[in-house]
Amino acid sequence: MMYPPEYLVMIPGPTNVPYRVMQAMLAPIINHRSDDFRVLHRSLQEKLKHVFQTENDVVVLTSSGTGAVEASVVNLVRKGDKVLIPVNGEFSERLARMIELAGGEAIKVKAPYGSIPSYEQVKEAYENNKNIKALYVVYNETSTGTRITWLDRVKDMLARDDSYFVVDAVSNLGGDDLPVDRWGVDICVTASQKCLAAPPGVAPLSLSKRAVKFMKDNPPNTLYLNLPRYLKYYEENAETPFTPALSLYFALHEALTIIEEEGLDARIKRHKECAKVFYDSLAKMGFEHFAEPSCRSHTVIALKYPDGLEDKRFRSTLANEFKVLVAGGFGELKGKVWRIGCMGEVNGYHVKRTLSSITSTLEMLNAKVKATTTPSLN
Amino acid sequence: MMYPPEYLVMIPGPTNVPYRVMQAMLAPIINHRSDDFRVLHRSLQEKLKHVFQTENDVVVLTSSGTGAVEASVVNLVRKGDKVLIPVNGEFSERLARMIELAGGEAIKVKAPYGSIPSYEQVKEAYENNKNIKALYVVYNETSTGTRITWLDRVKDMLARDDSYFVVDAVSNLGGDDLPVDRWGVDICVTASQKCLAAPPGVAPLSLSKRAVKFMKDNPPNTLYLNLPRYLKYYEENAETPFTPALSLYFALHEALTIIEEEGLDARIKRHKECAKVFYDSLAKMGFEHFAEPSCRSHTVIALKYPDGLEDKRFRSTLANEFKVLVAGGFGELKGKVWRIGCMGEVNGYHVKRTLSSITSTLEMLNAKVKATTTPSLN
Repeated sequence: MMYPPEYLVMIPGPTNVPYRVMQAMLAPIINHRSDDFRVLHRSLQEKLKHVFQTENDVVVLTSSGTGAVEASVVNLVRKGDKVLIPVNGEFSERLARMIELAGGEAIKVKAPYGSIPSYEQVKEAYENNKNIKALYVVYNETSTGTRITWLDRVKDMLARDDSYFVVDAVSNLGGDDLPVDRWGVDICVTASQKCLAAPPGVAPLSLSKRAVKFMKDNPPNTLYLNLPRYLKYYEENAETPFTPALSLYFALHEALTIIEEEGLDARIKRHKECAKVFYDSLAKMGFEHFAEPSCRSHTVIALKYPDGLEDKRFRSTLANEFKVLVAGGFGELKGKVWRIGCMGEVNGYHVKRTLSSITSTLEMLNAKVKATTTPSLN
Repeated sequence: MMYPPEYLVMIPGPTNVPYRVMQAMLAPIINHRSDDFRVLHRSLQEKLKHVFQTENDVVVLTSSGTGAVEASVVNLVRKGDKVLIPVNGEFSERLARMIELAGGEAIKVKAPYGSIPSYEQVKEAYENNKNIKALYVVYNETSTGTRITWLDRVKDMLARDDSYFVVDAVSNLGGDDLPVDRWGVDICVTASQKCLAAPPGVAPLSLSKRAVKFMKDNPPNTLYLNLPRYLKYYEENAETPFTPALSLYFALHEALTIIEEEGLDARIKRHKECAKVFYDSLAKMGFEHFAEPSCRSHTVIALKYPDGLEDKRFRSTLANEFKVLVAGGFGELKGKVWRIGCMGEVNGYHVKRTLSSITSTLEMLNAKVKATTTPSLN
């Protein structure tokens, strides 16, 4: 089998992985029940707490982001539980479905794809319902390029029922504001291959003390996704209950080291700046943004296809002629929308090369989208 | 953080990973919804079918072996289902617990640790119970170093109720006999980091057509471990439903290529030969085997500690002075038993270096175990 070429990976995950992080996967194989592992585990815990901005424990699952999101559901939602959830895209739909599979009643606050439910709508739904067990929010809807803008305001609202606050930040933690403790997030879920810029396959999630207490008192019908079981092994021996993806642990550790070196605030600022250049430049080119201006994601840029620009032809030309990967639409947006991942390492070079390649691709395809010069970014 | 030293990894997984397989993790990051991935996926499918000796589809989960074992349970076992299961160690106990968590009734056929229930005992249990949904077997009990010797005989027995036949071969597929189709195995589960000699984090499992039909008709309450969902994505687009651990996919692909180059039969023979040398030589040294001779594993050698040889001191001396890793006991055997993984790359060099290092360690510790010369192996 031929190995694939080296692309500029501008899809919304996996994203470009820095050289140092790739090399870290070559760390020697160790016994996952040994001091060699304990050193790795403890250091990883500290670094994860930093990027989650939390004092809570952080469990690392060997799974995709969806596995960790499912863990946040099956450990917390029980039969008959009322769960409030804004729904405005494929991933929030999927999360609502998981809540229902777990026996919960998903009270959906819907908004058209490309927009978000307002805080007032969610507050009204909360006020109209009694005994809300939890608010689950997909912070950054990868399918539509939107972000929920009011997460800093829900803590007080949830005090009425001591409702749990769960945030799916799979596609923006590390690239967007998310002070877990300050915002009172009980469970925060992310994955390695998005803004953390590590390879896919491991997914960390932070757990508040009261969430852990509930889970211990009400254990789920799963071993592999049983989160208190992970914490028990962490506490007793600084080990995992099941064999972890060691090479990906080393890679994630190196990726988090890079984040510390850059500084989390600087990293988030860089994501926002790069996203702004993408939004401004692509609008100048004549592309129409899919997301409304007030709720545009800093990490996923979603664009509508103009008439005459065909999804597969556009993206395959970009990939084959320029080695630049962008993503198509997801679910019902397939063929109508394309997306850029603005994640992880993303910097001026990535932005310029992507925009330049898009410009040239449009010329090659004779697409009727306004041309522009490539903007500059420091 | 300092990286760990390069050990000879003689624990029952993870095991030594060949250089080529480690390097394969450095394959460029690709879009997991692209032709680059489809090429990888299809080639991986072919190679997995070869090593599973099956025409069945093989699902690859991003998880540890336990995750895949749990998938084999939650997709097949429903409330009230009667499931027959031999129990003779920690992993079969754990599997029985998973069956109960899924609402099944686990009919345990027990044997003392170090031995296995006989075929006759299992047959008797089958005959004494009606409507047996499935027989679940941990083929190779990693915790005790035993293997079930009669798997080739159950197919006919299970015909009475059309019972499903599920084999947990996490710690011996690729290093022991397991013709999935010939033996009529409906679900066969393994993991990357054992006899396949890839890094941990992905776990393949084969699914018979009738098992898939049941799962489609009776979908489980999970998305992440929903096996028919994987097959649907495989069939429709040669994609995975959730982001796969791409780097580990490339590594597994390279590991399976090595198996093809060696030949599966030769590989299994090599495992058996290496295991025999371990058993014979360690007995000559004065160690007592934990497993009974008739059911000793070809991939995990379990040994009792003689009086005066302390677990932690023995294994840390081997690790620190000779860079050889062996494992301790698991669960209730902790401190009483130690184990050697005879897996994957294992060859004469591994065997000799391990035995030589053990001999020297015993001398250093003045342990009263009969000394011997290091045996030769071609």
